[in-house]
Amino acid sequence: MMEAQIDHPYIPKDLKLPGFVPCFLSQLDIVGVYGVASLLVFTFMWTLSGRFPKLSKGDRLLMCWWSFTGLTHMFLEGYFVFSPDFYKKKTPIYLAEVWKEYSKGDSRYAARDSTVVSVEGITAVLEGPACLLAVYAIATRKAYRYILQVAISLGQLYGTAVYFITAILEGDNFAASPYHYFWYYVFANSFWVWIPTIIIVRCWKKITSAVHSQDQIKTKTR
Amino acid sequence: MMEAQIDHPYIPKDLKLPGFVPCFLSQLDIVGVYGVASLLVFTFMWTLSGRFPKLSKGDRLLMCWWSFTGLTHMFLEGYFVFSPDFYKKKTPIYLAEVWKEYSKGDSRYAARDSTVVSVEGITAVLEGPACLLAVYAIATRKAYRYILQVAISLGQLYGTAVYFITAILEGDNFAASPYHYFWYYVFANSFWVWIPTIIIVRCWKKITSAVHSQDQIKTKTR
Repeated sequence: MMEAQIDHPYIPKDLKLPGFVPCFLSQLDIVGVYGVASLLVFTFMWTLSGRFPKLSKGDRLLMCWWSFTGLTHMFLEGYFVFSPDFYKKKTPIYLAEVWKEYSKGDSRYAARDSTVVSVEGITAVLEGPACLLAVYAIATRKAYRYILQVAISLGQLYGTAVYFITAILEGDNFAASPYHYFWYYVFANSFWVWIPTIIIVRCWKKITSAVHSQDQIKTKTR
Repeated sequence: MMEAQIDHPYIPKDLKLPGFVPCFLSQLDIVGVYGVASLLVFTFMWTLSGRFPKLSKGDRLLMCWWSFTGLTHMFLEGYFVFSPDFYKKKTPIYLAEVWKEYSKGDSRYAARDSTVVSVEGITAVLEGPACLLAVYAIATRKAYRYILQVAISLGQLYGTAVYFITAILEGDNFAASPYHYFWYYVFANSFWVWIPTIIIVRCWKKITSAVHSQDQIKTKTR
């Protein structure tokens, strides 16, 4: 006998999701919990970073960003990567609810599109822990703090580029409504475009300035 | 009336390629031209770089690599990105022949898989010109020469990772034979894994050493 097919809210309508169970939590609950959790991470990291000597406000903000994005990569995106059946969950598991809701902005998540899984896999497994290493590197002023931040930010930009370009090439028709398209797909993802870009520019300048100084010292001592 | 369907040599067999025209050139011709062209690029760049003062042999080798990989990205991969109908070419256009032949190692090229097109698009349009900028940056000892090389190498690694992971997730069944799988898909691509890795390690060390020196100068002058 076939598994009962419950109508899903995703586009394209002919996407087959046998065993789909609708969201238990409201949009407000799902977005609210993420918002409050993120605010707690920021507040905690801002307070903690204040106890480290010689850190500028910019460095402290970066520590907040890296802890927020690192935990998002590891827990939120990590859950997606290793839970192919998240849309079948019959109990209100928060992380499954997030992806049931987000799939309204991009059904490739529920459809387990291989590009989305690959990019999210690299993000969750490699970039997530690297973000937490960046927090530590900034706090303790390690010499690799700038190059590490450039490396992760470039990874985030590359992943987001592949994510958007593949969608466009496949017809860009994965959102349940213009509302979900804009807020979930465009707006939410835009943070992982403009913030990495700012960080790359900042760290690029720091690195070139350091290399420039060392080049000059070497020229003088010759 | 349907377009005449000529049997193609690719796997999966049920891949539809209406209008397919088989290779005109032999494998030896296709690989040979690429080999000789690459050797010419290396020889030319090695000779040219010898005229720049203060360049180590390592720097000169890197200039050879960046010109070779940059031209490969721009011309070979650029042709693929902007020629969706390469497999229909009725005359022996060298660049079309390359991709007809390479598709025996990975039919996603002929099938115009959106992940492959996205990754190749980023590689051809952004990384290709950036590679030539790296040649110039090394030759003229620009302060951004290390960070630029890390940025491009990370892009190459990320692209190769997405390229392999999506194939695995989709069953890893895109090669016409174990021979093509090994030589075209694994061996040829492996150069864009181990060479970028070596470059990242080298430049990472240079950058952290420069940042470390500058950190110490700043601490002393306080």
